[in-house]
Amino acid sequence: MTHAASGPRSVTLPGAVGLASGRTLTGVEVAYETFGTFDDEGSNAVLVCHALSGDAHVATGPDAEGAERVGWWDGMVGPGQPIDTDRYFVICSNVLGGCSGTTGPGSIDPGTGRPFGLRFPLVTVEDMVDVQAALLDELGIRRLLAVVGGSMGGMQALSWARRYPERVASVLAGATTWRLGAQAIAFNEVGRTAILGDPGFQGGDYYEGDVRPNHGLAVARMIGHITYLSDESMHDKFGRRLQDRANHAFDFVTEFEVESYLAHQGRKFVERFDANTYLYMSKAMDYFDLAAGAASLADALAGVTARVLLWSFTSDWLFPTYHGREVVDALVAHGTEVSFIEFTSPYGHDSFLLENDEQGHFVAPFLEQAYAEVRRRGGDAR
Amino acid sequence: MTHAASGPRSVTLPGAVGLASGRTLTGVEVAYETFGTFDDEGSNAVLVCHALSGDAHVATGPDAEGAERVGWWDGMVGPGQPIDTDRYFVICSNVLGGCSGTTGPGSIDPGTGRPFGLRFPLVTVEDMVDVQAALLDELGIRRLLAVVGGSMGGMQALSWARRYPERVASVLAGATTWRLGAQAIAFNEVGRTAILGDPGFQGGDYYEGDVRPNHGLAVARMIGHITYLSDESMHDKFGRRLQDRANHAFDFVTEFEVESYLAHQGRKFVERFDANTYLYMSKAMDYFDLAAGAASLADALAGVTARVLLWSFTSDWLFPTYHGREVVDALVAHGTEVSFIEFTSPYGHDSFLLENDEQGHFVAPFLEQAYAEVRRRGGDAR
Repeated sequence: MTHAASGPRSVTLPGAVGLASGRTLTGVEVAYETFGTFDDEGSNAVLVCHALSGDAHVATGPDAEGAERVGWWDGMVGPGQPIDTDRYFVICSNVLGGCSGTTGPGSIDPGTGRPFGLRFPLVTVEDMVDVQAALLDELGIRRLLAVVGGSMGGMQALSWARRYPERVASVLAGATTWRLGAQAIAFNEVGRTAILGDPGFQGGDYYEGDVRPNHGLAVARMIGHITYLSDESMHDKFGRRLQDRANHAFDFVTEFEVESYLAHQGRKFVERFDANTYLYMSKAMDYFDLAAGAASLADALAGVTARVLLWSFTSDWLFPTYHGREVVDALVAHGTEVSFIEFTSPYGHDSFLLENDEQGHFVAPFLEQAYAEVRRRGGDAR
Repeated sequence: MTHAASGPRSVTLPGAVGLASGRTLTGVEVAYETFGTFDDEGSNAVLVCHALSGDAHVATGPDAEGAERVGWWDGMVGPGQPIDTDRYFVICSNVLGGCSGTTGPGSIDPGTGRPFGLRFPLVTVEDMVDVQAALLDELGIRRLLAVVGGSMGGMQALSWARRYPERVASVLAGATTWRLGAQAIAFNEVGRTAILGDPGFQGGDYYEGDVRPNHGLAVARMIGHITYLSDESMHDKFGRRLQDRANHAFDFVTEFEVESYLAHQGRKFVERFDANTYLYMSKAMDYFDLAAGAASLADALAGVTARVLLWSFTSDWLFPTYHGREVVDALVAHGTEVSFIEFTSPYGHDSFLLENDEQGHFVAPFLEQAYAEVRRRGGDAR
């Protein structure tokens, strides 16, 4: 593994994957990409976890056809970037239940020979993390220098800290939470209602026909998109400006710029994302509770040994700063090393995809320090 | 007009109603109710304006069958309430474009003999106000002691102050704004998209068949409902509690309490509200701009002679406090008497329907003072 950017790869996990629901999956395929070179001490592996609509292509590199394509976190991961692929070996995989190569509801159910649809078992963030751990086993990576992620990626990173303390030296999680509040669950439920009630949804069995629940998925995405921005940034960007006209149309055709923008986001999303996966991802987020099974969040995190860097954004109203602070308090209760930064940003939840300079100023030295510490201790015994 | 509560009444406006869109409507029917007794000086008339989903039944009184029914602002309007129907003569009418008796998209188009549907002209808040003024002409009410309203009702109240300064002595507007920001327009647009894309919508011509866009309307209402509450109040009320079960179901059936609540709100709404009217009301709110046609909001309000009471709620993120303050600044610029209160409340935008004691403490004396002033000047010359 000395390639700079691997391009799309895939492994089939050899064993059965046991899920939180009690069900098991066999023959799970995991789509992943790597960037940079794994060092001889095995001490520089960084796992990046993607958010709801992400995929394995975190940094710029070849796509399946070999063409260079920009990664979804290109400003954070790459040569010379805060997560520097000249120094670190970055792995990013599509999550379990996804629609970008890893086994999900659109995959063929070996039991029936047809796509799973809603017969695919519900997955949790913990299930995603377990599949990532199994992938690392296949790749021969025993220990991670860091797990990094924003939003649902941050949930995975925090879950790694609790679930595999012996395998992760540091955890970096931004714009995330240890559990969704009622409002965030409510927004997800409205999105699911839009999808499930679309006649094109057909109980989730739309893969083999021509009709798909595009309208419901677009509505869900539009709702989600509003929650990813902020009142301030939307107003700064669009205000009350009309699209291509000076006066009101007095009809129900899209006329404010913000309407065109949202409609465009909905249409674009439908082209690249699967409605069933949207349901599974949103449900995994709703279910996520880092304190599950423990008397308190502090108790849940008592075994965390990783250094932790957490950050939030002032205008993120989906996962507000106080969510992150609760994690900090819980970690501090057991003396875990934890750093917390609240960035001032107008861009809402999406800030973690935009404020790369600001994040980088903290992520780069934090990773650097963790790397130095791991190497001081003699790297990893592979 | 000496009845305490009139029950549902209706007048047909004699002339044509000219609309902001340039179109006109003839034979407009206006559903209204009155509460209390109009005094001999004609000085105690209070017009209450309802919000998006309201109707003329603002206070408790008989319905069409004569049965006593609780009003939607029962804690604010009634005998002994802050807007005391033992003292004031309260009028409330269903807005133009509504679905509770006043002419709207579900009414019969005299040109075709069939329901208007989307052929009904788009209406603005100003159009609603003009129809209210025409109703008052029919009722022989020349001048109002006050116009009162929350949310879209507050927009109407503010519009009255600008549009009919000679007819209104005081204006009381809560949880409202002088114009929607991009985020609020975006939420409305998602709701409209859900309705317009529902196959049951049939281009708005669903009145004569069995199929209605119930799913789309329910989704729109669910979205709206989230914006009417607050993160805090939702979390206090529902948290992450599951409905009728101890553990996750691992399926897509509603399982969190907040999901059941929202689904219930959606279902209930569909039974009593018309999808087309929802489109028209949301569009009227998007269009509303109290400064329209003027160089600034201050210029727009230069002619306001009414005393103004404005209030907001700390947790109202749909129409945050700063919106109200902008109106205050604009009024103060021309020396208009204006009072402003920001109430501390966890209930979000819906606070104006819930925090009646708090609102009442300011509304009652403000009205009292306005009433004393009007009577000191010799009442109204009818």
